Amino acid sequence: LDSSSNPRGELREHAFLGDFCRRLRQRGARSAGRNVRVLVEPGDDCAVLAPSASPIALTTDALVEGVHFRSTWLTPGELGRRAAVVSLSDLAAMAATPTALLLAVGVADETTTETLDAILAGCAEACEAVGAALVGGNLTRADVLTLTSTAVGEVRGRCLERSGARAGDLLVVSGTLGDAALAVDGWLAGREPEQSVRSRWVAPIPRIDLSRALAEAGAHAAIDLSDGLLADLGHLCRASGIGAVVERERLPRSDAVAARDAAGADFALVGGEDYEVLFVSPPELEPEMARLARENGVPLTVIGRCVGGDAVTVVDSRGSPHVPPTAGHDHFAGRKERPR
Amino acid sequence: LDSSSNPRGELREHAFLGDFCRRLRQRGARSAGRNVRVLVEPGDDCAVLAPSASPIALTTDALVEGVHFRSTWLTPGELGRRAAVVSLSDLAAMAATPTALLLAVGVADETTTETLDAILAGCAEACEAVGAALVGGNLTRADVLTLTSTAVGEVRGRCLERSGARAGDLLVVSGTLGDAALAVDGWLAGREPEQSVRSRWVAPIPRIDLSRALAEAGAHAAIDLSDGLLADLGHLCRASGIGAVVERERLPRSDAVAARDAAGADFALVGGEDYEVLFVSPPELEPEMARLARENGVPLTVIGRCVGGDAVTVVDSRGSPHVPPTAGHDHFAGRKERPR
Repeated sequence: LDSSSNPRGELREHAFLGDFCRRLRQRGARSAGRNVRVLVEPGDDCAVLAPSASPIALTTDALVEGVHFRSTWLTPGELGRRAAVVSLSDLAAMAATPTALLLAVGVADETTTETLDAILAGCAEACEAVGAALVGGNLTRADVLTLTSTAVGEVRGRCLERSGARAGDLLVVSGTLGDAALAVDGWLAGREPEQSVRSRWVAPIPRIDLSRALAEAGAHAAIDLSDGLLADLGHLCRASGIGAVVERERLPRSDAVAARDAAGADFALVGGEDYEVLFVSPPELEPEMARLARENGVPLTVIGRCVGGDAVTVVDSRGSPHVPPTAGHDHFAGRKERPR
Repeated sequence: LDSSSNPRGELREHAFLGDFCRRLRQRGARSAGRNVRVLVEPGDDCAVLAPSASPIALTTDALVEGVHFRSTWLTPGELGRRAAVVSLSDLAAMAATPTALLLAVGVADETTTETLDAILAGCAEACEAVGAALVGGNLTRADVLTLTSTAVGEVRGRCLERSGARAGDLLVVSGTLGDAALAVDGWLAGREPEQSVRSRWVAPIPRIDLSRALAEAGAHAAIDLSDGLLADLGHLCRASGIGAVVERERLPRSDAVAARDAAGADFALVGGEDYEVLFVSPPELEPEMARLARENGVPLTVIGRCVGGDAVTVVDSRGSPHVPPTAGHDHFAGRKERPR
């Protein structure tokens, strides 16, 4: 897409798409998913996968420059990786095994072939890491860089839906919460976040194996934390027809997030884009969960419980209700900060 | 998305997404695909389909305002329909049976909920027409209206790949060619195209049943005509390692296209976005193809043949080589005409 190679400023979609498909094939071959057999590779009208003996999970998600990210926040490779993970995380939340991913890319005028190549490489690596194959894509021009990923998975055992939670169940989250929002807060304020905080926004890890294990162990429900704990818990409670009580002091936090939250912020409660998973589990599963957390190398923390009614309540260390400053993360709010 | 309902101009993605999912569920129920059983409906982290005993075809495609369409060219309902068809047509070209579709929507500031609702309705109708279910989606803000559809299908019999053509095979196209490009030519020149021409761009029909029938009858290869006959034939020839000769006078054309082509245009040869299918078939299949064309109510026209080598040649009625004005349709070229 170098304008130097095209003095009229017109791009030949064909030539570029052909190259894109060729590179997708290369990446596809590299990331040839151990979870799936690809019968027809990228470059034909469709990719074709071997039949699935298990139910098929499907999800799509988009990252738009200026709305979800700025190009200065991460490298193209990290962006491609993240574009895959935001969809793969939805598969994790259903306890599905990822098999394939398609990436539709809208490129802005200034996007170079090197950038696109790095995006594809990052995307393919994220697929490879979870056993999925990058099997297809699309390329078009757009005003700003836009990445729309569609992830395909198989539900090989129990499926974790949002609607399975019952009063009395425990609320359990993977990893730590709030770092992603803290990183964005830093960038928007003109500060580069600490590496440990930055990496939580830049390179979230889809909790595929942990979710599968918890589903098999008997967890009742799950949702991935993209909008923020409080917002996503609200979605889950509505789907399950229950209420919930969250103990703010039990939220798993990095030191950086804990310090800001102690000073009045609520990153762990309302910050979005952590891409951890909120599990709902019967209380008797607690010992087994501790074992699975160790086995998978991912912390699991009980943060509250499901109750009757439909209210989601947050309580502080003294048991008093805590009212967070905002109701949840909103991608659209980032718009106010757009550089253009 | 009415700004009147939101005086600060900030949109709550949650509320809107919740509503979007609710409407997807409504549409999903209406278009509940006869070709598939949906186990988990839109609104959870993923949609879940019943297992597939057949290979699974996957494809994704995007329509970007100002690049692929202008909002003045078609209604939101027609746009939603078209967003589905551009992906469904790729399934047709593989002889796959559509089962499900996901629609990721990027909305511009001025997009109203009524517009979005009409887009979803049109998309669901296009799915319903071919037995697929609209099972999921995503909503984000974007600079311009952007629709990315991912179509899922099952290859229940023979699969038509691009690579199956052999020297001696016939080139056969469905429907007529060039009307879609003629419609766009009209709009770009400030003329509203005739209804019969307009409808070919606005409401292309994915040739699902016809392709299935031709695959079962023994066709060797196929590709959908999105970039224009000459460009897509080039893709097919490269994939198959063959050359081709096209007889320009045999191209199936409406009277409107024939008149313009006679005056020096080459809409049927290089105009894109017809979403017809180019089939490659052994010569002995010609009588059977005539029967299948009648049965499916879609014309099939032999336009040339596959030859050795790697050259794609167009000949006129006297057998002399014809050199078209451009090598193929280029979505990106539309960019020059952008209203902003």
